[in-house]
Amino acid sequence: MQIDINADMGESFGAWKMGDDRAMLALVSSANVACGFHAGDPLVMDRTVRAALAQGVDVGAHPGFLDLWGFGRRRIEGQSGAEIERMVIYQLGAMRAIAEAAGHRMTHVKTHGALGNMAFVDVELAEAVVAAILKVDPTLMLLTAPLTAIERAARGGGLKIAAEVFADRGYDERGLLLPRGQPGAMIEDPHQAAERMLAMLEEGAIITAQGSRLPCPIDSICVHGDGPSAVPMASVLRERLEAAGHQILPLSRIERLQSA
Amino acid sequence: MQIDINADMGESFGAWKMGDDRAMLALVSSANVACGFHAGDPLVMDRTVRAALAQGVDVGAHPGFLDLWGFGRRRIEGQSGAEIERMVIYQLGAMRAIAEAAGHRMTHVKTHGALGNMAFVDVELAEAVVAAILKVDPTLMLLTAPLTAIERAARGGGLKIAAEVFADRGYDERGLLLPRGQPGAMIEDPHQAAERMLAMLEEGAIITAQGSRLPCPIDSICVHGDGPSAVPMASVLRERLEAAGHQILPLSRIERLQSA
Amino acid sequence: MQIDINADMGESFGAWKMGDDRAMLALVSSANVACGFHAGDPLVMDRTVRAALAQGVDVGAHPGFLDLWGFGRRRIEGQSGAEIERMVIYQLGAMRAIAEAAGHRMTHVKTHGALGNMAFVDVELAEAVVAAILKVDPTLMLLTAPLTAIERAARGGGLKIAAEVFADRGYDERGLLLPRGQPGAMIEDPHQAAERMLAMLEEGAIITAQGSRLPCPIDSICVHGDGPSAVPMASVLRERLEAAGHQILPLSRIERLQSA
Amino acid sequence: MQIDINADMGESFGAWKMGDDRAMLALVSSANVACGFHAGDPLVMDRTVRAALAQGVDVGAHPGFLDLWGFGRRRIEGQSGAEIERMVIYQLGAMRAIAEAAGHRMTHVKTHGALGNMAFVDVELAEAVVAAILKVDPTLMLLTAPLTAIERAARGGGLKIAAEVFADRGYDERGLLLPRGQPGAMIEDPHQAAERMLAMLEEGAIITAQGSRLPCPIDSICVHGDGPSAVPMASVLRERLEAAGHQILPLSRIERLQSA
Repeated sequence: MQIDINADMGESFGAWKMGDDRAMLALVSSANVACGFHAGDPLVMDRTVRAALAQGVDVGAHPGFLDLWGFGRRRIEGQSGAEIERMVIYQLGAMRAIAEAAGHRMTHVKTHGALGNMAFVDVELAEAVVAAILKVDPTLMLLTAPLTAIERAARGGGLKIAAEVFADRGYDERGLLLPRGQPGAMIEDPHQAAERMLAMLEEGAIITAQGSRLPCPIDSICVHGDGPSAVPMASVLRERLEAAGHQILPLSRIERLQSA
Repeated sequence: MQIDINADMGESFGAWKMGDDRAMLALVSSANVACGFHAGDPLVMDRTVRAALAQGVDVGAHPGFLDLWGFGRRRIEGQSGAEIERMVIYQLGAMRAIAEAAGHRMTHVKTHGALGNMAFVDVELAEAVVAAILKVDPTLMLLTAPLTAIERAARGGGLKIAAEVFADRGYDERGLLLPRGQPGAMIEDPHQAAERMLAMLEEGAIITAQGSRLPCPIDSICVHGDGPSAVPMASVLRERLEAAGHQILPLSRIERLQSA
Repeated sequence: MQIDINADMGESFGAWKMGDDRAMLALVSSANVACGFHAGDPLVMDRTVRAALAQGVDVGAHPGFLDLWGFGRRRIEGQSGAEIERMVIYQLGAMRAIAEAAGHRMTHVKTHGALGNMAFVDVELAEAVVAAILKVDPTLMLLTAPLTAIERAARGGGLKIAAEVFADRGYDERGLLLPRGQPGAMIEDPHQAAERMLAMLEEGAIITAQGSRLPCPIDSICVHGDGPSAVPMASVLRERLEAAGHQILPLSRIERLQSA
Repeated sequence: MQIDINADMGESFGAWKMGDDRAMLALVSSANVACGFHAGDPLVMDRTVRAALAQGVDVGAHPGFLDLWGFGRRRIEGQSGAEIERMVIYQLGAMRAIAEAAGHRMTHVKTHGALGNMAFVDVELAEAVVAAILKVDPTLMLLTAPLTAIERAARGGGLKIAAEVFADRGYDERGLLLPRGQPGAMIEDPHQAAERMLAMLEEGAIITAQGSRLPCPIDSICVHGDGPSAVPMASVLRERLEAAGHQILPLSRIERLQSA
């Protein structure tokens, strides 16, 4: 089976570094690149895109709230759908230009942090993000957790969808991530994480912390791009997937997604 | 003769307003829209583009330094050419996406404030801006003061160039603007400004404060977009140009520029 | 009776102007000065403080969320009480230094926008703001709407409290502001607003949109600092208050507040 | 002889870390804390101050240009002396409040990055920084390279001055740092750096790369706070200084500085 591994990248800013992008780019097949609102800057974006291109890794836009201090992790309330749409269009346009100027191509979009969490449940916001993508380039793929408001909005809008599961996060009975701090929320052992992923791929379902199966497509596995466990986690996962006969491919080369 | 009138627009930010864009859009034919680094934000950009479209006014990107506090008017030293290039690519990409999502088209680029002043004389920086434009879209036009480093860089790079003169600013013997504060630096009377413009157009030359003629193409006249005199200045200028038989057209419709 | 009139001031930023602070400073007795997070910058703060000093107007800090784009009006979730406390300490310290360097004195604190709205109902956030004030200077006064979480927190912490009512806003039955858009939320006629204020002062109570009386202290009347109606509203209010025998005084000179 | 070791600290921002402040605080005696303009934020500042207090380390303000993207290393031209003064007052006030709220005390000021480099040679800017310090607290000490415009301005203004030399940087014949990239600009071997410092202390002079002696007071040695060599450099330096009989003390406890 063809499967993508994705991670958030390009989250440095100016003099500040975040994550070991170089190491991660040898392990993942798609990179979600911060667009300057919650992290990233034009130079970081350019460097990330060039390094991804050299490794044959897809790049996508990873838009977030305008909140460097909070790294886009804080909910900013009170923006209308129209405002969210413009905010995302701006970031996608900037990212696309950086990617193309570096000789690469922006293939997908994945929402970041609080914007992402809100898009999982807030229909108006989810539709605004989808509208932004459609206006910038309707051939872009949305990389998202399945069973969410934004997945439904993307389906309604006719966007291509790549469904992702998280290698190291536990799921509740609705298919949403267990909040950090709850038992089972974090899977820290890379082998346990890899086995869980293999099981989900085999069953074609999210397996919840309680053991339920929630059938859904799985096109990509998300690993963390920073932190001390990022490289070992991605490394073990990649090895185990390949050993089990899966083929790791960037989103743009997974055949079932192109024909969709 | 076909001539464009341009002004900087979209320089509001969030709750802060700058200029009377609505009034100005009825008087100019091209608008240079701030891209969020020195002014402007995704909402302001979108509103400006939509209003321009409704008036048949061209929109271009007006990139500047990342300096909201200083409104892009302060020189920020120590950025390499490669850094300037990425910084401009980012802004052009964002602007293009906003313009296209609103159903309009980005036709030109004009550098803002300190970035613009530096591009008049700093060859490396000028070439970086030109490289950025070429990488984003080689059919974009550069709107610039003639007789400057960036005009030469654009010519070398094969960009289309639209040459502008300033309605209300005096010129030195090299064809550069007299610094504010020097005698003759500011022309405040709209009729005097208009007459000066008519003379420059007739002679095909910049007329300096000392009365010299510096032959150069003139495709556009730049008027200020904000301040109490912006609307009267643009209004008188437009009237006088039309009375003298000039045809006010956006950059994209001036025939000699298209065939260049 | 001694009464203060307060308005938010110093909400310009860099090249962007907000409100007619000069006109307002002739009408109010206390100014709440933005501290650079949602509006204001060191130069605007300094100018505002000097102009206030020249008019005998008190200055206080008006801290808000770090959100220039949203002008501090958007709720930013996910900051702990400790984080809010540091964020407010920083702003109070900056404001105090600017005030003292200009020869004035910071007398009070009033929370801005979304931070203020959250402090009306969120006990942890309200206590964090009060803790910040106590740590910077326990003699500072808190200027706040009464009947709110932050008023109770301030009382618990031993802060001096100046209670304010809004000249042009309607109240619900709990004493909170009616949301804009609801009938009775905005009082636009200056004379109607002034009469309502006189009635509230006479009764020593907030009078709700439904006509109920909610007894509370009233030490200050808040008027808007910007918008076309700001100057006429403040002007009529001041005139009517004085005609009715009230004495307009800055917070630091209202005797009942000093002896508290 | 009593000598201080200082390093820049608190240069993290939000989710981004810079340097190993915890390790460095065990080795230095004074910390220059970023104030939120080029690095640092209210939470980082608070954490840094509390950790310094726990280690008996002095804290000072480390103000810089408002330029997170450039980490305060880029010259921003075009600010008047009055503007620089307000910008520094704001940062000192914020820092003082954070320090005092944490139970510590701000003892000194050291300019950061491009602001510092400009203050070495630009008399107007240097005098503006000194004026800011005098207005916030005339008992604050200025920590600075000697033989510079800001040292002279501080002397003229009556500020206490602590003179510093750089452990790992070479000096030209005027006593200014050799630009990075020139031979002798960087001393990478900790033992060589330590020996050079011991020689300078013994001779009471800066020893230039060419071997000249420039007599000047030396009260503090500056080590870098981040980078892989920061901890080994500070560690060897401290050891060698103590072995040679020097007493490492924070600026506020060096007797000759207090009696000045």
